[in-house]
Amino acid sequence: MTMRIDRKRLEMTIEELGSIGATARGGLTRLALSDEDKRGRDWMVARMREAGLRVTVDRMGNIFGERAGAAALPPVLMGSHVDSVPTGGRYDGQLGVLCALEAIRSLDDHRIATRHPVGVVIFTNEEGARFQPAMIASGVMAGKIALEDAYNARDKDGIRLVDELERIGYLGPEPCVARPLRGYLELHIEQGPFLEEEKLSVGVVEGIVAISWSRLTIHGVQDHAGPTPMRIRHDALVAAANVVAGVRGTARTLGGDVVATVGNLTVSPNIVNAIPGRVTLSIDIRDPKIETLEKARGILDRVVRDACEREGVRYELEHYWQVPDTPFAPDVIAAVERAATAVGARWRRILSGAGHDAQYMAAIAPTGMIFVPSRDGRSHCEEEFTAIEDIEDGANTLFLAALDLAGRA
Amino acid sequence: MTMRIDRKRLEMTIEELGSIGATARGGLTRLALSDEDKRGRDWMVARMREAGLRVTVDRMGNIFGERAGAAALPPVLMGSHVDSVPTGGRYDGQLGVLCALEAIRSLDDHRIATRHPVGVVIFTNEEGARFQPAMIASGVMAGKIALEDAYNARDKDGIRLVDELERIGYLGPEPCVARPLRGYLELHIEQGPFLEEEKLSVGVVEGIVAISWSRLTIHGVQDHAGPTPMRIRHDALVAAANVVAGVRGTARTLGGDVVATVGNLTVSPNIVNAIPGRVTLSIDIRDPKIETLEKARGILDRVVRDACEREGVRYELEHYWQVPDTPFAPDVIAAVERAATAVGARWRRILSGAGHDAQYMAAIAPTGMIFVPSRDGRSHCEEEFTAIEDIEDGANTLFLAALDLAGRA
Repeated sequence: MTMRIDRKRLEMTIEELGSIGATARGGLTRLALSDEDKRGRDWMVARMREAGLRVTVDRMGNIFGERAGAAALPPVLMGSHVDSVPTGGRYDGQLGVLCALEAIRSLDDHRIATRHPVGVVIFTNEEGARFQPAMIASGVMAGKIALEDAYNARDKDGIRLVDELERIGYLGPEPCVARPLRGYLELHIEQGPFLEEEKLSVGVVEGIVAISWSRLTIHGVQDHAGPTPMRIRHDALVAAANVVAGVRGTARTLGGDVVATVGNLTVSPNIVNAIPGRVTLSIDIRDPKIETLEKARGILDRVVRDACEREGVRYELEHYWQVPDTPFAPDVIAAVERAATAVGARWRRILSGAGHDAQYMAAIAPTGMIFVPSRDGRSHCEEEFTAIEDIEDGANTLFLAALDLAGRA
Repeated sequence: MTMRIDRKRLEMTIEELGSIGATARGGLTRLALSDEDKRGRDWMVARMREAGLRVTVDRMGNIFGERAGAAALPPVLMGSHVDSVPTGGRYDGQLGVLCALEAIRSLDDHRIATRHPVGVVIFTNEEGARFQPAMIASGVMAGKIALEDAYNARDKDGIRLVDELERIGYLGPEPCVARPLRGYLELHIEQGPFLEEEKLSVGVVEGIVAISWSRLTIHGVQDHAGPTPMRIRHDALVAAANVVAGVRGTARTLGGDVVATVGNLTVSPNIVNAIPGRVTLSIDIRDPKIETLEKARGILDRVVRDACEREGVRYELEHYWQVPDTPFAPDVIAAVERAATAVGARWRRILSGAGHDAQYMAAIAPTGMIFVPSRDGRSHCEEEFTAIEDIEDGANTLFLAALDLAGRA
């Protein structure tokens, strides 16, 4: 096998796109539908047009760039997202989009015509850092989230998603709905430690773990931190601290692959000399099996109840978002395995612990993912890093897998 | 004794000043040197001028209004502050200033000439909710805080105190230094439950507890909440939660009158699907005896070290502000007791659990305080409330105590 992507060219696009929203310490802040996101999108659209792709934008701001196939068949889509978390890294999302672009360019380099069209897709607001829930736009496309609800999602300043889509010029005309696809392929960083620990360059992703998000609001009694004796306190933060410890304890109790995290915690009024009157916090639980999440939520319900009863505070606990574990399509997994082997990558099968747009896409298309290693297993931080040699193996795997699915004309 | 303040008039001023920065639920947000603070100050200055007082403003924005005495003697000052915490109440601070104004007006009503001048003072930024430390302006006056440091205090948006003083027109020309005073008297709400529990209307304050403020910054490893297995996590919030629980535990261990509070806690990046990389939090400890604070900090040092070692995170712990317990002047306490008795108030001696400008004033003047009850012991919240009957007892006590100290001409 001699067909390969152009590593130098790919490396250059990683530099260029990575400079849009770059932080001083080598990371990236490019929140969904921010000015930086608009500049990232504009740059991608220009590159897609240069590559001769037909670019369209749908009502959720998802961007598609299609390379025609020999026959009127459903396309193979490759893609990911270009939004980031605050002070995130330069690989999460962008790498998948850039490797997809590189695969298209490589088809051109090698003058390959495919039976099925091959395209690039950039999904809106994958991270959920600005608008919740995460993966909102693939969720709409898969019919799992109502367009209306997505439009009305608000950021922390109360700004609506639809208004920001319009403001940055990406409220497109195409309907955001499922349509026939030959396959969806997403290359992404692993965001975990396994590939690096085992010195592998590629993970052939079999599916995505089940995810549950909950929101807890604790209502204590705001009071002065000085003259209020300990015996009459109802401190929302003390209850919250016991919940945070209890979330960690729940993961420890269940063991196995379950992970549980309190990532967001906000105190009100949040000043040195006031007993906290209100705390809101998030609980994120993940496991390969959805049954484990149900068990975890059962334990958590008790943890929260006990912590709040002990402190004499009211609370509301909402389990507001859940996705079951998502197995990917056997034929796509097989195509990725063949490609990884042909490339000479050091690979193994792996399960994704993070949600991805591939999760929703799996409901409407034969879907697969390709992982490349994350240094120290780290992501969602400025230190995010993947060596270019591993990226090259991943990009070549994506290129050959897409070609495999699309078929030579 | 027939001389009394005018309760109706006092009640009206509470309504009027309370409307500046009023919240929808009956509270007050009037952060130091905000537009609301300026309007509150302007309103007070107008009332002081109406009452014939000579109004001056010093370099820290402290406002003085003086009623001449018969002799060139040091004045008796009465006062407090007009800034509030966010969503605070209508009594904390403002009540002391309004009762001082009412006492002056009552001297006029009864055509009383005093030997010593009698004045009102409004201190800048008592709460410490916007600029830290709290009581910054009386601290400068007492020579405990350098003017330069106070000027450079910044709010959370990085705005300097001195620039805000200038912006709202209260960067005065008078030096902010100690000068001879016959006495300083501050009426304030108790902010604790004791007077109400014992059905008393007035507390004769003997002094203020010792206070210690610390700041803890925990550096964990920011990472993705999904694919990062529990075994490799270094979660700053999990460590912080154990510290919050440990602060509560420290108060329980020491028992007695000690109180310990984590009022401020901020998580970074603070999103659902990222393991917190950094947490900062405040620790406020108070006790009648400074030795207890030292003991408490010793316990806390171990609590923090253990919590952070267990999670494998780095930290910095700064004990950045401390005031010893402050006994008030015996002759002023005695004058307040005589006044409370003459008024017919139901009173007892009490210790203040909250810091007040009186704390710094005690270093440069014979100082005393008068407490009135707080419903349910609550303050620094919109529910703050003191019955007008109790306020009347307190205001009359202030009036007669000030007259006692100033002497009839």
